[in-house]
Amino acid sequence: MAALVAVDEIKENQVVGLGTGSTTHYFINELAKRNEKEELNILGVPTSYQSFLLAQKGKIPITTLDEHDIDVSVDGADEIDSNLNLIKGGGAAHTLEKIIDYAAEKFIVIADESKLVDRLGKFPVPVEIIPQSVKTVFSSLNDMGANPEIRMAKYKDGPVITDNGNFIVDAQFPLIDNPIPLEKDLNSIPGVVENGIFSQMTDKAIIGTVEGVKILK
Amino acid sequence: MAALVAVDEIKENQVVGLGTGSTTHYFINELAKRNEKEELNILGVPTSYQSFLLAQKGKIPITTLDEHDIDVSVDGADEIDSNLNLIKGGGAAHTLEKIIDYAAEKFIVIADESKLVDRLGKFPVPVEIIPQSVKTVFSSLNDMGANPEIRMAKYKDGPVITDNGNFIVDAQFPLIDNPIPLEKDLNSIPGVVENGIFSQMTDKAIIGTVEGVKILK
Repeated sequence: MAALVAVDEIKENQVVGLGTGSTTHYFINELAKRNEKEELNILGVPTSYQSFLLAQKGKIPITTLDEHDIDVSVDGADEIDSNLNLIKGGGAAHTLEKIIDYAAEKFIVIADESKLVDRLGKFPVPVEIIPQSVKTVFSSLNDMGANPEIRMAKYKDGPVITDNGNFIVDAQFPLIDNPIPLEKDLNSIPGVVENGIFSQMTDKAIIGTVEGVKILK
Repeated sequence: MAALVAVDEIKENQVVGLGTGSTTHYFINELAKRNEKEELNILGVPTSYQSFLLAQKGKIPITTLDEHDIDVSVDGADEIDSNLNLIKGGGAAHTLEKIIDYAAEKFIVIADESKLVDRLGKFPVPVEIIPQSVKTVFSSLNDMGANPEIRMAKYKDGPVITDNGNFIVDAQFPLIDNPIPLEKDLNSIPGVVENGIFSQMTDKAIIGTVEGVKILK
């Protein structure tokens, strides 16, 4: 439902950041249909191999951040607080998502209401790290009060490997009082590539609820 | 000369972080000789493929950060200010260097006196980035007053690729007044893996001068 409303936001000739995840999956498929039927002439910038493959399948022409500025990026979230700060990275794609969503003129989050929280942090913060830094990153995260775990893969042995060739550490914090400094502090740990806190970036959230779609700004 | 003095700092049975670069190259070779001759029984943790290969050649047994805590790390620098803040990354190895040097109980920098500066920043700050983020990182660096350039390779076509598979952007700033916040701010740009400012990390600098070796703490 949220995905359908988000598709309505996309106008002719726009360059669209294509987020990653199960909700965005619907968005990309619907956008592909609309693009073909109404000749919207859009271009897509994928945030992951998942969205790259979905865009290809739906015949959305693909471009890159280097070729075009992004008009609007549509992406999911694992948690959304009342200030529209997010936790993302359940799909291990948050590094490229942050690059692309941050670059977009307008960033729209789509999710169902189960993702709305008072305070972030029930969902562990995904942290992408250089594989050689596991021990030191764990030590720094422990010092910061988090309980870190290396994310293990399901259909390969050993850890999840990101699209960039790195590991994901899921850092369970007590509830997060202030995500803005935490986002910065996590990126200052040597070995951390990018973390899943997206603070001060979201322009609009489109939330699917049992009573219909709710818009938060 | 600085490398020789640094070798004297290494004691029996220590685990030693092996830095990267031309000065550290001497250090590793001398350490290898001493280790063999005096049966020091050290273990080395390389910060790059360069130091990995040198350690192998010199028969220094190699271990990892995951196996052992590091007693002392010895590394070079491209610039050193009077507070022992550094610019590193001329060799494109600063991400793993920072992980290992930061983890070491004691971090010693070795260099010749040409690397001493009043203020950092004549040497451009090397910034390792995810390849897809070139355009947005350039835009952020320009906003911060820097002049960024992608580092090009010499013995391959196109850009330098780091040991982690990423690009290096050399960011020429006006002289840097305060490296501590700049180090944090650079790491907060989406797409930045790690930058070459090493603030508040150095325990000792061993500097080779025309009048002999100078120790800074």
